[in-house]
Amino acid sequence: MIQFQCDYEEGACPQILERLMATNLEQTVGYSEDEYCKQAREKIKKACDAPEADVHFLVGGTQTNYVVIRSILRPYQGVISAVTGHINVHETGAVEATGHKVLALPSKDGKITASQVRAYYDAHWNDADHEHIVQPGMVYISHPTENGTIYSKSELQELYATCKELGLPLFMDGARMGYGLMSEKSDMTLADIAANTDVFYIGGTKVGALFGEAVVITKSALKKDFRYCMKQSGAMLAKGRLLGIQFDTLFTDDLYFKIAAHADKLAMKLKNAFLEKGYKMYFDSYTNQQYPILSKKDREKLAQKYQFSFWEQIDEDYAAVRFCTSWATSEEAIDELIQDI
Amino acid sequence: MIQFQCDYEEGACPQILERLMATNLEQTVGYSEDEYCKQAREKIKKACDAPEADVHFLVGGTQTNYVVIRSILRPYQGVISAVTGHINVHETGAVEATGHKVLALPSKDGKITASQVRAYYDAHWNDADHEHIVQPGMVYISHPTENGTIYSKSELQELYATCKELGLPLFMDGARMGYGLMSEKSDMTLADIAANTDVFYIGGTKVGALFGEAVVITKSALKKDFRYCMKQSGAMLAKGRLLGIQFDTLFTDDLYFKIAAHADKLAMKLKNAFLEKGYKMYFDSYTNQQYPILSKKDREKLAQKYQFSFWEQIDEDYAAVRFCTSWATSEEAIDELIQDI
Amino acid sequence: MIQFQCDYEEGACPQILERLMATNLEQTVGYSEDEYCKQAREKIKKACDAPEADVHFLVGGTQTNYVVIRSILRPYQGVISAVTGHINVHETGAVEATGHKVLALPSKDGKITASQVRAYYDAHWNDADHEHIVQPGMVYISHPTENGTIYSKSELQELYATCKELGLPLFMDGARMGYGLMSEKSDMTLADIAANTDVFYIGGTKVGALFGEAVVITKSALKKDFRYCMKQSGAMLAKGRLLGIQFDTLFTDDLYFKIAAHADKLAMKLKNAFLEKGYKMYFDSYTNQQYPILSKKDREKLAQKYQFSFWEQIDEDYAAVRFCTSWATSEEAIDELIQDI
Amino acid sequence: MIQFQCDYEEGACPQILERLMATNLEQTVGYSEDEYCKQAREKIKKACDAPEADVHFLVGGTQTNYVVIRSILRPYQGVISAVTGHINVHETGAVEATGHKVLALPSKDGKITASQVRAYYDAHWNDADHEHIVQPGMVYISHPTENGTIYSKSELQELYATCKELGLPLFMDGARMGYGLMSEKSDMTLADIAANTDVFYIGGTKVGALFGEAVVITKSALKKDFRYCMKQSGAMLAKGRLLGIQFDTLFTDDLYFKIAAHADKLAMKLKNAFLEKGYKMYFDSYTNQQYPILSKKDREKLAQKYQFSFWEQIDEDYAAVRFCTSWATSEEAIDELIQDI
Repeated sequence: MIQFQCDYEEGACPQILERLMATNLEQTVGYSEDEYCKQAREKIKKACDAPEADVHFLVGGTQTNYVVIRSILRPYQGVISAVTGHINVHETGAVEATGHKVLALPSKDGKITASQVRAYYDAHWNDADHEHIVQPGMVYISHPTENGTIYSKSELQELYATCKELGLPLFMDGARMGYGLMSEKSDMTLADIAANTDVFYIGGTKVGALFGEAVVITKSALKKDFRYCMKQSGAMLAKGRLLGIQFDTLFTDDLYFKIAAHADKLAMKLKNAFLEKGYKMYFDSYTNQQYPILSKKDREKLAQKYQFSFWEQIDEDYAAVRFCTSWATSEEAIDELIQDI
Repeated sequence: MIQFQCDYEEGACPQILERLMATNLEQTVGYSEDEYCKQAREKIKKACDAPEADVHFLVGGTQTNYVVIRSILRPYQGVISAVTGHINVHETGAVEATGHKVLALPSKDGKITASQVRAYYDAHWNDADHEHIVQPGMVYISHPTENGTIYSKSELQELYATCKELGLPLFMDGARMGYGLMSEKSDMTLADIAANTDVFYIGGTKVGALFGEAVVITKSALKKDFRYCMKQSGAMLAKGRLLGIQFDTLFTDDLYFKIAAHADKLAMKLKNAFLEKGYKMYFDSYTNQQYPILSKKDREKLAQKYQFSFWEQIDEDYAAVRFCTSWATSEEAIDELIQDI
Repeated sequence: MIQFQCDYEEGACPQILERLMATNLEQTVGYSEDEYCKQAREKIKKACDAPEADVHFLVGGTQTNYVVIRSILRPYQGVISAVTGHINVHETGAVEATGHKVLALPSKDGKITASQVRAYYDAHWNDADHEHIVQPGMVYISHPTENGTIYSKSELQELYATCKELGLPLFMDGARMGYGLMSEKSDMTLADIAANTDVFYIGGTKVGALFGEAVVITKSALKKDFRYCMKQSGAMLAKGRLLGIQFDTLFTDDLYFKIAAHADKLAMKLKNAFLEKGYKMYFDSYTNQQYPILSKKDREKLAQKYQFSFWEQIDEDYAAVRFCTSWATSEEAIDELIQDI
Repeated sequence: MIQFQCDYEEGACPQILERLMATNLEQTVGYSEDEYCKQAREKIKKACDAPEADVHFLVGGTQTNYVVIRSILRPYQGVISAVTGHINVHETGAVEATGHKVLALPSKDGKITASQVRAYYDAHWNDADHEHIVQPGMVYISHPTENGTIYSKSELQELYATCKELGLPLFMDGARMGYGLMSEKSDMTLADIAANTDVFYIGGTKVGALFGEAVVITKSALKKDFRYCMKQSGAMLAKGRLLGIQFDTLFTDDLYFKIAAHADKLAMKLKNAFLEKGYKMYFDSYTNQQYPILSKKDREKLAQKYQFSFWEQIDEDYAAVRFCTSWATSEEAIDELIQDI
């Protein structure tokens, strides 16, 4: 069985394991105050062209999302998100568990627009009863989205300008950041991301690391005491250097970007194969997640050899499914799958 | 300016104030452990035909809603509600502040159905990733709803049967309970409510009291330590007898029901006047809230003399508004308004 | 049975009930946006000599304490309190329920000192692991304390100066404020309180009102969105005018101060009677709570006719008990008790 | 600089890194539902002689503590702990952040006794105002404690018998479990721990793993939906197999116990060296943490070559410090240190 179910089914880039091996018996202080973390921070800040940013290393995506969000919001504020946003649907209410409502905006492609945010904000403050309604306190987006789609630079700039104008910090969930940046449709660099958000994270778990997410806080007002929030949430790894070593490795010689580009390339090969054979795609994704619409018969046939995710029933026969590639997917596996389509 | 904006613009039934006056200098123990509360509890249990029920007195609706909900749910569970439910839209995220997501179901008339609940429940448990999704833990309804609509006995029975089968406690917000029970369309008594829910409350604030909501817990498993939850939430009134005296008065000689019937009667008179003059109603309410659709010109004209709530814009010209009657509304005020329509 | 068990066993000052009666059928907007609340706010601000303050009306003490505290703290911060503080011992963990630890300092008399706060603060920030420890975020005191003791003006000034220097907002719980201010040992006015705290409240429940606490926020940075916090916590009374009318009455013709002075006078009469007869007092209180140390035999004898609170066992025979006077205590009741000592 | 500052300054046992290397490109499902986790669970259950237990893998200690605690308590309940307990002092209020008070009992050696728990429980339920006080809902202990001390089998049995009688689940924090079990003073096996607690965890982070804690739930009533709690708290590792592989390795050929025994042996060698040279120990520890009392001069001298933790100032000159050994400490390092004492 070849797995395309998600993008975290293997361990880590071999380079990472080698570094962990090589440094294993070194003694370092804990809680990410070691030299490896310092190095990794410097490389990330450089890659982001954000010398003043704070960089923190956390373990996983759900954890990172709720720690960032709770570090920003006041108790009576909520976070604006696409209705399909990971925080709204797949984190067992982690954000609500910290006391905050997710304010879900409709979205077809997983993205939300500057005008949606403005309309929601205006509706809130124009409501005579606004004190009886959760106050919008920040905006959450993901890039790529749950649907594999990405923001263009102009879309992000417009959204960020609106957020700044309205005083709503903009937080980007970059669990799959690499796959977004290396998409053939991407017109953004990490520096563009850093320049057009207040805080974001660079996902490691799904892009080559054993685990780990690097939070980059560019807005000064959001930096204070973030480590307290991490510790309180059980999100400060004792052997923090494990995160430092991994991100240092990923940000050496552009490894992070190279492995992401590899996954995107294979995903596009797969997408084009589906399209050529007349299949429709549920979302028009140019990243490592692809969503063909398959008949029951096709799904059953492919399921004999491949694992993939069920996404959504379209009609009685057809359903959208998801195939993920990753840094670890081999060209052979994709070619075999394409043969079998 | 005559106010029809909401149903809590006056103080309390004169009988209540008289009782408060008469008992003012008596000394009683605090925290609703006094004799007045005991009497009121007995009367309420009798009216509910629920001799085994626990009855608690809280101060207001938002408070009551979140205290009941947090007393029931496990941390990772959410509460199913109509998307229009008060807890979902008008309580500043009080439920989320206690850590729980409101699981909103679509609703046109403010009600939710047994089949909706079942479908949601099934979808959750059939999802391979259900551990990543907030678990449905209970069901919240209001009666009447925010839209003035009420459940029929058979609807409630079906909903409750489903909830019991699925192990989801059913909680009814009865902030306007009296207006629901005395509606000309109602086929339920308080005993029917008690027999077809696990916990509900009888609203006092909007039905004749200065303040106060009487929570009735019929399901044994939900009774334990409710007073701890109340105290922790700041919902245990020091001079608890104020609540006991008020509910004792309301449940003496059917006062609660008589004043609610009065409000419903005037509301129907108003509704019929609107209908006769060709106006449409946004919701088909038979309780004390009425939602005519008025042109901008009509709204402006009426607004010179009356206060009412804006509800929702329909098109450029027309909007739904809300007129509320209450125990305190006079027939003269309604007649005057009808004249002016 | 004559009750000295606590100071909230009667209803309210007759003047309050009369005002409620007189205004009962007036129509006002809800949620404390009515004229009575506005008037009451003005009178309170004047009494506090704090024209820029924000004044909010809540229902009870536990509610007020946790709403104020959660409105101030960041998630990883705690509130410094005397170990005997009401929030630490008698509110069922209401503060912790909002996510914040109570940082308890030892106290013999219920008060905490400027030097204790400074030492705690310094110990925190000097700890190499301070990020692993709850950060002190504000200071809570009560005046009078749970032990009936009061701060002198110089003590409060010193404490406040320290708090300001350390950036810790100072919050005073004034559930029994009147009894503190009117104590024969008090050298402070309400204006002194306002000038030497960042936020405090004037207790109504225990000093003449049916219920109600008036929060006074003098520090600008703490004012923002307080009403959102209230509403979210179920602490915004629908018929807010009930609070406005009560506080307006209490702050008309110095009623609040007169009734408090009455209670203090009777308490001192009682205290002196105990002392004259050779009894010892557990705390040296000059307010409405008195704590004689009685033998078992004395306790049993008095308990036949009077209710009072058990406070703490001293040795096998002796225990401290508490007698409370209030605005409603009659001189006759005290005289009778003194006779029976 | 040789580090004895804590027991998590190196990576992991080489065997673990080798297994991670060897399995790196295998594809497994996520979230600890893979075969490695299954294997590890079986081995742990066997080592615990607890075939019916549930075993879950989390990432770190703070996370594990609060996830277990919040999965057990009702909102108004608190957790009894020694005042020195890790949850009370070194987790930035993680337990309070989930809404629960830590109910701290005095402790000289880090342990709490059955009679302390009973006394606290009785005092709560005998208090007339118990509804105004946080209800004790469970008991937290650590083994070894923060002070290096361990429970004897009879102490634990007595404590557990009391907890069962009182209906208080007993939770043991075993962040350093190995070092406790292999202490020369230990009279318990893992099976004894499992038989005398309701839930506990086997620490990996401090005993040979890169990270990871294995929660063992023996009491049926505590098993339900634990994975929901994990996911909601961001404590469910995406690549769960990393935890499975690590614990599988640690529980193969008694590796976990062998490496812990090694650390204990070196710690006792160090302790004895201190004692022989006339130093006093602050706690009488027989595990991997040792607490000699050193003069300022001695501390400064040793600090030139070794890193260790400051623990507590004793008088102007003397202070207790902490030296930790671990699975990774070499006999040479200890011998060198002994030489320098």
